[in-house]
Amino acid sequence: MSEQAVTAQSEDFSRWYNEIVYRADLAAPSPVRGCVIIKPYGYEIWEGIKGGLDRRFKATGHQNAYFPLFIPESYIKREAQHVEGFSPELAVVTHAGGKELEEPLVVRPTSETVIGEAFSDWIQSYRDLPLLINQWSNVVRWELRTRPFLRTAEFLWQEGHTAHATHDEAEEETLQMLDIYAEFAEEDAAIPVIKGEKSRMERFAGALRTYTIEAMMRDKRALQSGTSHNLGQNFAKAFDIRYLAENNAQAYCWTTSWGLSTRMVGAVVMTHGDDKGLRLPPKLAPYQVVIVPIYRKDDQRPLVMETVNRLESQISAAGIRVHVDRREGQSPGFKFNDWEMRGVPVRVEIGPKDVQNNNAVLARRDVPGREGKQFASQDGIVGALEALLNAIQANLLEDARAFRDRHISDVGDYDEMRQVVDSGNWARAWWNGSDEDELAVKDETGATIRCFPFDQPEGTGFCVKTGQPAQKVALFAKAY
Amino acid sequence: MSEQAVTAQSEDFSRWYNEIVYRADLAAPSPVRGCVIIKPYGYEIWEGIKGGLDRRFKATGHQNAYFPLFIPESYIKREAQHVEGFSPELAVVTHAGGKELEEPLVVRPTSETVIGEAFSDWIQSYRDLPLLINQWSNVVRWELRTRPFLRTAEFLWQEGHTAHATHDEAEEETLQMLDIYAEFAEEDAAIPVIKGEKSRMERFAGALRTYTIEAMMRDKRALQSGTSHNLGQNFAKAFDIRYLAENNAQAYCWTTSWGLSTRMVGAVVMTHGDDKGLRLPPKLAPYQVVIVPIYRKDDQRPLVMETVNRLESQISAAGIRVHVDRREGQSPGFKFNDWEMRGVPVRVEIGPKDVQNNNAVLARRDVPGREGKQFASQDGIVGALEALLNAIQANLLEDARAFRDRHISDVGDYDEMRQVVDSGNWARAWWNGSDEDELAVKDETGATIRCFPFDQPEGTGFCVKTGQPAQKVALFAKAY
Repeated sequence: MSEQAVTAQSEDFSRWYNEIVYRADLAAPSPVRGCVIIKPYGYEIWEGIKGGLDRRFKATGHQNAYFPLFIPESYIKREAQHVEGFSPELAVVTHAGGKELEEPLVVRPTSETVIGEAFSDWIQSYRDLPLLINQWSNVVRWELRTRPFLRTAEFLWQEGHTAHATHDEAEEETLQMLDIYAEFAEEDAAIPVIKGEKSRMERFAGALRTYTIEAMMRDKRALQSGTSHNLGQNFAKAFDIRYLAENNAQAYCWTTSWGLSTRMVGAVVMTHGDDKGLRLPPKLAPYQVVIVPIYRKDDQRPLVMETVNRLESQISAAGIRVHVDRREGQSPGFKFNDWEMRGVPVRVEIGPKDVQNNNAVLARRDVPGREGKQFASQDGIVGALEALLNAIQANLLEDARAFRDRHISDVGDYDEMRQVVDSGNWARAWWNGSDEDELAVKDETGATIRCFPFDQPEGTGFCVKTGQPAQKVALFAKAY
Repeated sequence: MSEQAVTAQSEDFSRWYNEIVYRADLAAPSPVRGCVIIKPYGYEIWEGIKGGLDRRFKATGHQNAYFPLFIPESYIKREAQHVEGFSPELAVVTHAGGKELEEPLVVRPTSETVIGEAFSDWIQSYRDLPLLINQWSNVVRWELRTRPFLRTAEFLWQEGHTAHATHDEAEEETLQMLDIYAEFAEEDAAIPVIKGEKSRMERFAGALRTYTIEAMMRDKRALQSGTSHNLGQNFAKAFDIRYLAENNAQAYCWTTSWGLSTRMVGAVVMTHGDDKGLRLPPKLAPYQVVIVPIYRKDDQRPLVMETVNRLESQISAAGIRVHVDRREGQSPGFKFNDWEMRGVPVRVEIGPKDVQNNNAVLARRDVPGREGKQFASQDGIVGALEALLNAIQANLLEDARAFRDRHISDVGDYDEMRQVVDSGNWARAWWNGSDEDELAVKDETGATIRCFPFDQPEGTGFCVKTGQPAQKVALFAKAY
């Protein structure tokens, strides 16, 4: 697994990423073009992400449901911007059951249309509102360039779809779900994110407003990590989602949608990983603690394993996810490297001396070398591990936040912005440009507007591109 | 919802089923042919099923992973019986990203082939065995006749896929997973099942042996509720899944697969439901307890609701899934009917007198009328509910078991079997017929061999069809 050194991040980040993903056993190449296999170690991280989000969705009154994978082609065409946005990426079933279908079926790229049609049936009166639905599913968007977790033809995600009586309630929901994404990212994934609104050009096809959480990866590129859309009445009108109001008048609903995908697994890799491999935040780590038994001679083995087995039960009983590396024929050094590659937050070493002294060595993945090692009494090991896991969770977040903040600069003019973006950093600049201006910036610098952050400076300024007075700052960065 | 009486089971079971599924809000018709929408109330039952199974899978060392939805057409064709079994049911993507594909992609009807290909990469030596993988996913088998949960073009399921060094280990795994299905069905879903082996004709396409759990629905038809397949070396040979044995020789693996689907939701409906609607086993019920506040005059409301809110917190804090029906403008009678339709195991009624007397009325869904009602002190309500939920869980299982056992008869000759099957019952008979004999029975009686039950009588007998000496009894029934 870890016999050969990984490419350094500084040398070729993209190569580093691919190597880590495969060598840490998160994913495997698949025989199907554009798709990868999510292996157990990667899937468990996704299960952690699902658990963290699902709990928060349910606590805010959302319910899960499941809608068909296939969508009649005519549905996709019903909302004008939507069809334009998704057409180039569709996979289409034309034959089934040995016959050609009368109407081709699109494999869902997202479910606004089929859910819109259902909502128009389900919603009759104001009593049915708000309707708060989420779906965990696979979706397909045909992509030729594949990167595991970041861009694949098929991916897993959740998509929330809600309907409301008023614009303001829909807006409140849209922002609430963005907050939930941000809270999850920071608390569970230890990824600091910037909340903001997308520019008109980067909006979801058919939305009134799109909000986003943007995270900085270790190569300083931006990763859009979750989006929440206020769809206005566009889909309600296209799919006739109406309700009888208290005043007996018929009115169109206001709808929202919001999604977060297996891309988040990629975000975890690229936010925390280093040249030795993954560094997993304890809340999402499949194994929070790995125990490596150490013995030179076979006669030391029974004594060491007795202690190891006892500690395993104790730690596991405390609700900590612990794994004992019982592989025979591999040296402790090999195992250390392997678990560093897989990003396990804490390694526990138990050798004959530790058995004798009632001790254990605890090594933090996030602090290299001697500095990250400490002795703990076996009697107090659960408490020591709990404290360490909390400390690591907090440290990964702070480390990522400090890294990000070091690499965002306020820029006064276009030349300065160019320099900042050229150096790979993010630029914050006043903006009032047109769509064309935004495209020109992308052509000239490679950066796009990641968002207009909610956190805006006081006052006004002058647009970095047009020189005209501007009310808002935007964040510019190269992005995945 | 429940304004009109449901068709009686005795009148038209199939109509009863469809009405219950839609009126209890488990599913909704979908605009896509052959597919239904699983609504939140139905999806929560599925989440309960997933939870119960996933826990058992993980406890026996299985790990979840995710494989591509699309399978190259050539893969499906690689195992001869497999392609024959599935070809008529395939949905095929021919176009993607605006172009015709060079090789059509099949939407997975099951994943043996694509997982087989992956296993051949992942498995190198005996150290990699056993490999124990499970996948939660959607699959598509093109069906023209749709019945929600029982038969739809797309459905949700889990499919386990494992590889082993020897035939015996594969067989052990196949039987272990059948046991897990049976344990889940009886303990969680309160559905008694008969474990047995499928006949050659009913085997999974490409399997050496297929095992099944068979359950009797309230119309006495059999429902195959989960299957576990020993695939022998058929897929290992078709996909070159080999390992280096300890003796340094290359050997083919022995593989298994096993699956259980959203069909189990239909099994719950048809095993426990009655003319008033669903009866949900407490372990799978989205709401285990519903509280209906009762007041005639508006000035009674605050007092009643104060008690209701307090009890809700208390019950919920004890880990019981409780829901308060706070709907305004609906009578208690309407609400009682509605929650009976939805099968909530226990209804708690709180009126002004109950508030005064520190009492509550608890009504069991599984025991109709006065007999199912009891008073409980509000102070002891959590204990009373816990006891009641346990009693209901046990009673539903015993009730279903008694019903089933009443409707299985040992038959001595073909005429007798005909009569038993004609009356809708199951027949147990000695069997040593050929495939043609089995087909003839189906043509002549409408019954199929559900399984050769593991639980076999002593001795031998004479085949019910051929009159020849026979070693085993088979169960014959009409089936879904």
